[in-house]
Amino acid sequence: MYIAPTRDLLFAATELADLQGVAALPGHEEVSEELLQVILDEAGKFASEVLAPINHSGDIQGARFSDGKVITPDGWKEAYHQFIEGGWNGLPFDIDRGGQGLPWLVSAAVQEIWCAANMAFGLCPLLNQGAIEAVGSHASEEQKATYLNKMVSGKWTGTMNLTEPQAGSDLGAVKTKAVKKGESYLISGQKIFISYGDHDLTENIVHLVLARTPDAPEGVKGISLFIVPKFLQDENGNWVVRNDVETLSIEHKMGIHGSPTAVLGYGNNGGAVGYLVGEENRGLMYMFTMMNAARHTTGVQGNAVAERAYQQAARFAADRVQGKAIENLMGDRVAIIEHPDVKRLLLVQKCRIEPLRSLALFTASAMDKAARHLDEQEKKRAQAFVEIMIPIVKGYSTELGLENVSLALQIHGGMGFIEETGAAQYYRDQRITPIYEGTTGIQAMDIVGRKLVRDGGVMAAMTIDMIAEDLSSFSKDDRIEKMVTSLRVAIVELQSSIAHILKLAAENPQLPAAVGEPYLKLWGVFVCGWQSAKAASVAVGKLVDDSDDIFYQNKIDTARFYFSTEMPKVNYYVSMIHTSGELIVGMDSAQFAVN
Amino acid sequence: MYIAPTRDLLFAATELADLQGVAALPGHEEVSEELLQVILDEAGKFASEVLAPINHSGDIQGARFSDGKVITPDGWKEAYHQFIEGGWNGLPFDIDRGGQGLPWLVSAAVQEIWCAANMAFGLCPLLNQGAIEAVGSHASEEQKATYLNKMVSGKWTGTMNLTEPQAGSDLGAVKTKAVKKGESYLISGQKIFISYGDHDLTENIVHLVLARTPDAPEGVKGISLFIVPKFLQDENGNWVVRNDVETLSIEHKMGIHGSPTAVLGYGNNGGAVGYLVGEENRGLMYMFTMMNAARHTTGVQGNAVAERAYQQAARFAADRVQGKAIENLMGDRVAIIEHPDVKRLLLVQKCRIEPLRSLALFTASAMDKAARHLDEQEKKRAQAFVEIMIPIVKGYSTELGLENVSLALQIHGGMGFIEETGAAQYYRDQRITPIYEGTTGIQAMDIVGRKLVRDGGVMAAMTIDMIAEDLSSFSKDDRIEKMVTSLRVAIVELQSSIAHILKLAAENPQLPAAVGEPYLKLWGVFVCGWQSAKAASVAVGKLVDDSDDIFYQNKIDTARFYFSTEMPKVNYYVSMIHTSGELIVGMDSAQFAVN
Repeated sequence: MYIAPTRDLLFAATELADLQGVAALPGHEEVSEELLQVILDEAGKFASEVLAPINHSGDIQGARFSDGKVITPDGWKEAYHQFIEGGWNGLPFDIDRGGQGLPWLVSAAVQEIWCAANMAFGLCPLLNQGAIEAVGSHASEEQKATYLNKMVSGKWTGTMNLTEPQAGSDLGAVKTKAVKKGESYLISGQKIFISYGDHDLTENIVHLVLARTPDAPEGVKGISLFIVPKFLQDENGNWVVRNDVETLSIEHKMGIHGSPTAVLGYGNNGGAVGYLVGEENRGLMYMFTMMNAARHTTGVQGNAVAERAYQQAARFAADRVQGKAIENLMGDRVAIIEHPDVKRLLLVQKCRIEPLRSLALFTASAMDKAARHLDEQEKKRAQAFVEIMIPIVKGYSTELGLENVSLALQIHGGMGFIEETGAAQYYRDQRITPIYEGTTGIQAMDIVGRKLVRDGGVMAAMTIDMIAEDLSSFSKDDRIEKMVTSLRVAIVELQSSIAHILKLAAENPQLPAAVGEPYLKLWGVFVCGWQSAKAASVAVGKLVDDSDDIFYQNKIDTARFYFSTEMPKVNYYVSMIHTSGELIVGMDSAQFAVN
Repeated sequence: MYIAPTRDLLFAATELADLQGVAALPGHEEVSEELLQVILDEAGKFASEVLAPINHSGDIQGARFSDGKVITPDGWKEAYHQFIEGGWNGLPFDIDRGGQGLPWLVSAAVQEIWCAANMAFGLCPLLNQGAIEAVGSHASEEQKATYLNKMVSGKWTGTMNLTEPQAGSDLGAVKTKAVKKGESYLISGQKIFISYGDHDLTENIVHLVLARTPDAPEGVKGISLFIVPKFLQDENGNWVVRNDVETLSIEHKMGIHGSPTAVLGYGNNGGAVGYLVGEENRGLMYMFTMMNAARHTTGVQGNAVAERAYQQAARFAADRVQGKAIENLMGDRVAIIEHPDVKRLLLVQKCRIEPLRSLALFTASAMDKAARHLDEQEKKRAQAFVEIMIPIVKGYSTELGLENVSLALQIHGGMGFIEETGAAQYYRDQRITPIYEGTTGIQAMDIVGRKLVRDGGVMAAMTIDMIAEDLSSFSKDDRIEKMVTSLRVAIVELQSSIAHILKLAAENPQLPAAVGEPYLKLWGVFVCGWQSAKAASVAVGKLVDDSDDIFYQNKIDTARFYFSTEMPKVNYYVSMIHTSGELIVGMDSAQFAVN
């Protein structure tokens, strides 16, 4: 059972993430609170009725590979057809390509719902979305006419083919070859970890493949991007000619069993026909275009699975009767939710999930402004904010997501370890989110390297200023003022950490890399505190008119708990940033050898 | 591949956990460093050659249930027979029962090796050990003569039957019935989550079952303990008559697939024959006898699986070539162990695993002293220490164990999520350790309730004094003195937290319960810091003579890293203890309702 948190999504979008501001952007005039409400209600209904019911069965049955073909779990096909008929696939894409033309802010809210209801299913449109962006931004008009409408409608799906056995995070090591032949290229090589790299949901699949032409420069500067359809056109224009791309196997994964992860062999019979996107050797740059959205969505996913696990744990805790209340040991047994330690476990999850949700939506809102704002200064500020937040939304949401699903499982006791209960699936599924679309280590390198050392802290300072300014608008209620004080102290700590890292960078480039993860997490604790306090600040105002609304009381209570239990991590990460770098870099790799 | 960390086990036992003191106890005169070395070498060999190779295959195949019978994975039977032929089963038990009569200190070191090599296999002797203790301590001489020797040799195994569907952590809710009939009792009811509750490794299984006689008082004071053998004797004394206990199913678990977890139905055909252990209504007390050892071993297990996962991650990191060194981007690709963030991930694991290991051995050593020391004062001090440490060894080792196996998986990137790699198995297997033998929440209630509020902090103060005294003997080396200063600050924080919790307890018994887990973890960080600094202090001395030994240099480096990255958690937990209790208790359970 899954109930989409539509009220909280609506609250986060309208009260915290400036839906009004997004609706004021050119091209988004149709956006309104009412429209969002309708969309979320419909998405919630579809998620609860169609996607959630096949989540557990999809895990048990899994995607299968037989006779060279991939078969998705029972119910997947029907659900997919309903999904694309509902027009869900094209939500954020151009109306003239058949999309709905809605902002990322709306799309991100809906993405949470799909990923929570059925992460393995939701991965298919999620990957397709990335492919659409790459094609939409860099392909020729002719290529767009051929592929884009079908991908936007969901009639065909797109895949991202980056990884090879020797090239995981290190794309400079890509070896797949592309040899020009007439108007097209012949592609050969092996790609691994291709999510939905093959499936039976659509008639065709559009692979976006990174490969290297014979005379390309070495490393990341010699990678080109190709469109390689699973089926090519015959002379009558029908897409029925099998291209030379073969599904070699699908992976046996710990989680997201319903989603096939394929090993694809290109060119085992002469070469797969591929069409160059844009210019040669610019493939990695094209990929970066869609990286922000893909990483953002993966962060949303990490928090979505945590929400789903929380819902299950909260229901279990309310239903499971075990033990007496500690203050009334002579009384009847009580539901375990009455035990303080179980309340604590739920509260830890809740106080993280809600600010991570609004942070993701606020970031999506900034993505919309960075793309469309008419004021150049606002656009630039929004872009700087997005650059800093993407590794946080991706890295921090997925890392906390791991902890959260573990706490949700823990509430079930021994039942949590039994697969039938369902908590174990979330625990297994979630484990991939801090890995794919760039590991947490990669996100840490991004925020400490490209987004701090490279520009000497300019973007970071802009973002801190923006948040500091926002704090000034918060309620003057005592409880909120305490939170603001704590956030202002954190800003000082963050600034001193930034100064320290810039100093380290001047000494030895290894040192910032060694403290990248605590730096990312320091940001994470801080910005979630900001979002948490902001929600509480709004709630204080709302309660003046409606003092009974438990939703707003919850916002204040969970924020207070956040500042009691999460915010003190600031000092912990600051200490790591200031003292651990030299120790790490000083270790010789031989010191880790096993006996 | 698994290599037992024999040098570190030997170091921890002799230099940190007072092997000499244990060897001075009556009955342990044969114990020596040389003997321990021989035992560890042999155990390590057996683990690497016999148990480790069937760990992954046992996970894939799993225990199976067919025609009412349980079949263990291929190779399990042969390994078990070699295990008992080697005399490993009886290590800590009386020589006159066929055991080796060795101290817990030695047994704990060997247990780590079994659990690391093959957790699912190691669970069988582990549970048997608990059953042996219960029978050995409370059964009649006749019962001992009948069952004990066979259990000590491992010819038969014992099981612990506590949990029922409605009674997990709450044993007062046990409903299984025991009705006296002549010399024995007829047992009926259902028991769940019985590890190795049925299997094909031995000819007979000795179930220890908690049940309630018809006129027993309600709750925990009305529970009795029974021996219920799977097979009873026929008139010729052969154990061939099937008792009325039926295996109804085995659980489909997330991990430890090789170990069958049975649902047992007692008395579906009139009643299973059971023999009362000791007196009626004292069953729970008898169970508590073995609880300390069982919880201790589970803590060892949590750290053992983390060690295994660390070994795999360290090897992977040394072998996997990806990316350039950040300080030499024009150079060749390097093994990922050269990347600072990967070094950091390994170091985090290492700096926790080693002190958790020595803490478990130090605690085992105190268990030996509490059992055998001739000086009553020493005995009492040792017992107080054991009481405080058991929930820490259990709760903290398993909670950090979860984080550690997750970091080990993370180092593998996408490969970590693929089952063939092996890292995923440790991640799945480990997840049960903070649940069984009492969840972390139960351990927290133990340390904050029974071990703090109940005695007003007497045992806690004794333990703190003992550690404070120990610190005075540490090296005066600058690096070590910094650690000692940090530990003395932590002592002040711990004492103020204790005072605060005792004040809370006087206000409302829910409040200490709400902060039990941060209190447990505060202890955990502190005592691991103590062990870490102690190891470094010893290492400083050793390096005077042998300045090249990387083993000792490692001790200093990992301790410094511990004090940089783990020790700052002290403030974090202290903050939670001081500020979060009221917030948790103030939450109404309705506030957690999903929409």
